[in-house]
Amino acid sequence: MPSKVEIPRKTVYRLSIYLRCLQRLKENKIETVSSEALAKAAGVKPTQLRKDLTYFGQFGTRGLGYNVTGLSGAIGEVLGSSRLQPVILVGLGNLGSALLRYGGFQKEGFEIIAAFDVKPDPRRVKGLKTKLLDSVLLPDFIVEHQIKMTILTVPAQHAQEVVNTLVSSGIQAILNFSPVVLEVPKNVIVNNVDLAMELENLSYFIR
Amino acid sequence: MPSKVEIPRKTVYRLSIYLRCLQRLKENKIETVSSEALAKAAGVKPTQLRKDLTYFGQFGTRGLGYNVTGLSGAIGEVLGSSRLQPVILVGLGNLGSALLRYGGFQKEGFEIIAAFDVKPDPRRVKGLKTKLLDSVLLPDFIVEHQIKMTILTVPAQHAQEVVNTLVSSGIQAILNFSPVVLEVPKNVIVNNVDLAMELENLSYFIR
Repeated sequence: MPSKVEIPRKTVYRLSIYLRCLQRLKENKIETVSSEALAKAAGVKPTQLRKDLTYFGQFGTRGLGYNVTGLSGAIGEVLGSSRLQPVILVGLGNLGSALLRYGGFQKEGFEIIAAFDVKPDPRRVKGLKTKLLDSVLLPDFIVEHQIKMTILTVPAQHAQEVVNTLVSSGIQAILNFSPVVLEVPKNVIVNNVDLAMELENLSYFIR
Repeated sequence: MPSKVEIPRKTVYRLSIYLRCLQRLKENKIETVSSEALAKAAGVKPTQLRKDLTYFGQFGTRGLGYNVTGLSGAIGEVLGSSRLQPVILVGLGNLGSALLRYGGFQKEGFEIIAAFDVKPDPRRVKGLKTKLLDSVLLPDFIVEHQIKMTILTVPAQHAQEVVNTLVSSGIQAILNFSPVVLEVPKNVIVNNVDLAMELENLSYFIR
């Protein structure tokens, strides 16, 4: 089994996709899958798939394809080792509140255990009471609960300041919905999701 | 000005990012920006930025940098020509409902004018009454209102079937939140957003 640093970031992304495809095959009681079929389901080229799967040794059998259960188990072991992470959400505007209500993160093993905002909402959302986002309570909570991951949904103009607090408190991974490029140290990883930009990008290609 | 097909998809993505950065500079009354500073704000290499901006002719002045208003106007003209598109949202589960309440798409010029679900919600969300998702009402609405863009938030197992209906009704662009790789004809573009996978990917890199 490779150590974590050996698998490049983009490969990890694709492994997540392969895992989802394999899980659907399992649900449909399919036992083996060719690299061509799995690659097509995942939206990649077969050569890419075969290259990515070299991290897992020999799971394919020439002419038969991959064993669905074996391969999904192996990928799941690598990806899954650090799942079930507690997560905090920072910024309860429209998008933050919507994501908190969404509940889809839990299903994948990520529990949002606290939500912070500069103006805490007195109502509970999904059983959570909003905590006050300030320069004392937020760091204290992160340290006390050993939080490593944050979903960031604060307004763009406050994002970097909040991120500085998060990083100095020990946050290592940020799922950033604020439309701003964050500056973080090398040991911190940021994934950016900009929903409006996705639509803008699509609209450009409409004829 | 280049015609639409000349700018590659990944460049269009980056142009959106540059435009956001330039808009923030304008808000802060900054008149010129060096390619190094703009590249840093956008999270790309200066060489990449300069290459991308060759689509816009000469906006940089050696030693002075780019004129913020001029460059943002030029990029905005290319990107913005097809904005203000009406959009429909299909699938009102937790995520679909959350995105409908979010409201951030409107701010960027995209109006969600209808939402469809197999079980329409009798309550109005953001002033919208949910419409019945079936094989007659959905195509009729798309054709009648000349809709080109869809936000797709249906369960994975129904996504492809719904997409077939969308595509045959004239949808050209899909922002897909269903965790499945969609098969579409070449003239249809799909952008995938998988929120749980973003967290999964981040968690892999936590030490």
